[in-house]
Amino acid sequence: MATEKTLNDLFHDTLKDIYFAEKQVLKALPKMARAAQSEEAKAGFTQHRDETQGQIERLQQVFELLNKPARGKTCEAILGIIAEGEDIMEEYKGSAVIDAGLISAAQAVEHYEIARYSTLISWAKLIGLNDAVPLLQESLAEEQATDKKLTQLAQTWATAKGKKAA
Amino acid sequence: MATEKTLNDLFHDTLKDIYFAEKQVLKALPKMARAAQSEEAKAGFTQHRDETQGQIERLQQVFELLNKPARGKTCEAILGIIAEGEDIMEEYKGSAVIDAGLISAAQAVEHYEIARYSTLISWAKLIGLNDAVPLLQESLAEEQATDKKLTQLAQTWATAKGKKAA
Repeated sequence: MATEKTLNDLFHDTLKDIYFAEKQVLKALPKMARAAQSEEAKAGFTQHRDETQGQIERLQQVFELLNKPARGKTCEAILGIIAEGEDIMEEYKGSAVIDAGLISAAQAVEHYEIARYSTLISWAKLIGLNDAVPLLQESLAEEQATDKKLTQLAQTWATAKGKKAA
Repeated sequence: MATEKTLNDLFHDTLKDIYFAEKQVLKALPKMARAAQSEEAKAGFTQHRDETQGQIERLQQVFELLNKPARGKTCEAILGIIAEGEDIMEEYKGSAVIDAGLISAAQAVEHYEIARYSTLISWAKLIGLNDAVPLLQESLAEEQATDKKLTQLAQTWATAKGKKAA
């Protein structure tokens, strides 16, 4: 066998991936809040920034449970997702549809995080890291709630501005 | 106003993004099928490759409805997500947990596509591109079904190998 990598390694690598990702999201959200036009979208991004801080702290607790330092690993996926959000901010600056683009970018972020937390929860159970499960589940529930709130924000935007902006 | 970008532009830009993404996924899936150890995972990736071909054709129909050429636009997000899958293939080659890593990478792809198709469906309704809606909904339903199948594959893997691989 070329390697002796285990599920513990896979869990640890993925934990470093989402830790890096959450820290990037923490930096991106205030920019998205500034770029948004509506007060609802600004408030949504600001509130999720605070939640993200809590999620980072929960990940630090999971690193502690593993007896490993809390250290990220470059996550190309989140860098790409955030880069696309930045393109929207540049290309749609001053446009009446910028909020629709920002909400869409934020939902791509949420879906990435939902995929990662779901995976980490099932692996935590398998490797017997039981105390990590409720921490990861709490963050997953927050991401799912944020995704729903973004869908509602998009609907509010569509009702107010959507048809006019087509 | 600096720009006059409309929701039609945002729809078209996002269509080019997912078109590029699906074509990248089409190339990545056979590599993932080859890298997988279990017959179930190999079959799952191969089947989703065929579905992806159908999704690309549906996107071409949506470009036609817009009277635009079917042309992609570099999607940094999918490149990042696929790059992470390739890291898994390299770093976990020969490991008993490679299928768990590949399934997780595939779920990150599915979640990206679910986010994009959901957004495109709501925008297609707003811009009155009604004939695009069932095409996009069909692809969304396939992605959601694939995500569920991947969760089942992960559970099958966990039952057969998970605890031993921890």
